[in-house]
Amino acid sequence: MRAVTTELRVRYSETDQMGIVYHAHYLVWFEIGRTEWCRAAGHPYAEMERSGLFIPVTRVDAAFRRRSSYDDPIRIVTRMAALGSRGCTFSYEVRNPADDLLADGTTRHVFTDAAGRPSRGPTPILAALERFRASEA
Amino acid sequence: MRAVTTELRVRYSETDQMGIVYHAHYLVWFEIGRTEWCRAAGHPYAEMERSGLFIPVTRVDAAFRRRSSYDDPIRIVTRMAALGSRGCTFSYEVRNPADDLLADGTTRHVFTDAAGRPSRGPTPILAALERFRASEA
Amino acid sequence: MRAVTTELRVRYSETDQMGIVYHAHYLVWFEIGRTEWCRAAGHPYAEMERSGLFIPVTRVDAAFRRRSSYDDPIRIVTRMAALGSRGCTFSYEVRNPADDLLADGTTRHVFTDAAGRPSRGPTPILAALERFRASEA
Amino acid sequence: MRAVTTELRVRYSETDQMGIVYHAHYLVWFEIGRTEWCRAAGHPYAEMERSGLFIPVTRVDAAFRRRSSYDDPIRIVTRMAALGSRGCTFSYEVRNPADDLLADGTTRHVFTDAAGRPSRGPTPILAALERFRASEA
Repeated sequence: MRAVTTELRVRYSETDQMGIVYHAHYLVWFEIGRTEWCRAAGHPYAEMERSGLFIPVTRVDAAFRRRSSYDDPIRIVTRMAALGSRGCTFSYEVRNPADDLLADGTTRHVFTDAAGRPSRGPTPILAALERFRASEA
Repeated sequence: MRAVTTELRVRYSETDQMGIVYHAHYLVWFEIGRTEWCRAAGHPYAEMERSGLFIPVTRVDAAFRRRSSYDDPIRIVTRMAALGSRGCTFSYEVRNPADDLLADGTTRHVFTDAAGRPSRGPTPILAALERFRASEA
Repeated sequence: MRAVTTELRVRYSETDQMGIVYHAHYLVWFEIGRTEWCRAAGHPYAEMERSGLFIPVTRVDAAFRRRSSYDDPIRIVTRMAALGSRGCTFSYEVRNPADDLLADGTTRHVFTDAAGRPSRGPTPILAALERFRASEA
Repeated sequence: MRAVTTELRVRYSETDQMGIVYHAHYLVWFEIGRTEWCRAAGHPYAEMERSGLFIPVTRVDAAFRRRSSYDDPIRIVTRMAALGSRGCTFSYEVRNPADDLLADGTTRHVFTDAAGRPSRGPTPILAALERFRASEA
């Protein structure tokens, strides 16, 4: 499966009083990974929404394995684990520069219209996402 | 000026690695104060948006005077400092149960439609807000 | 299992451009549920941290079943699903006033010291949490 | 005054139901600008905190002039407007790629120790910051 890597630095606002990243922010990083995966696949998510295709999150699971701290450089490695006509699943690894796994997880999504009603993804977009998903880097 | 008081507890997610509330969250608390002021005035902000009146923030200033920490009970005291046909100004005080001032500030707002175009506030709503604004508690 | 219910209103800052609550905020609500469960059990989490017992999140899973919007009143129903000497598991339901299930999930936790090293929870605290956990409302 | 420019893309989590960036996130962007200014000056803020120098925000003001939306590329231009032995002031401009001003503002800071007590900044660090502050790009 094609992996797309995104880099960022931990923001001060993402830390909590334990001195580490507050766990919910990893879900925001997953979203950033998704955004960059879609852009790399040729279908930026902002354009998909403008065309009427919304991809909200319906489930998430995540494991927090090592701590990260303010200003740490981190990498998010994103793959689309599954794709159907009704929705898709992304998987994520968050790693530090030494390639240690900090966290991993998956998000499941359904395709909807702007009002949140389930819909089928448009065939040309699904075909493009599937080609990219299954491609070599 | 009529003051509306809202109570909340500091969330763990609102702390940072200094062990105190991250400053940007005070702006979120100001927003909560505004929400409760509008509700007390008889015009919940959610209803105003549904009727097509949006009140985005155009300026903010805030002073952070004392620290607050996870699970601290705090009070937000909100007043509408000025109201015109084009916009309004709110002022806020954030206090602890001993009534110490933790932070204060103001936000300025314009009235717009859903697309963000400046508009005049509807006369009946402005009249109701003005009556409440100038009323005694 | 003892259920502790916490009420809150959706903040404007918790919405996103889909017009609904951004999914990561449900994890913040879970944390608020945990905080209130611990308080109800007689051991506020802020006190546990001051005594040197930290309870970071190691895993989370959540399902988002119905949308919630700005200013909606919601209830978080929290239970401690499991408790051992090394950690614990909380479960959560997020419901609207009509008792519809908006989201549910679980978080797993380990007990650590302030430096993040795994530790055993103090026996008196564990005993108190276990009594509350298994009690009737 | 030396200006340091940082680039980022608007995160989905930073939008609200108006379809634009929620205003409090600009303060987070200001913080990112500060972080990169300090790094460029040779004194990463994470190191300053590790050495015992904390620089909390005591005042902020900001004006929101144009809207920004999900996935927009933006630039934060940061300057240190003033520096004394007790604290400093940063100024910020947030601009889009067409160089339109989206927002600007300032933050005031005091120097403290880890417990939040006011302190004087260490002379060598102050000297280095002052040299960088007044330098040409």
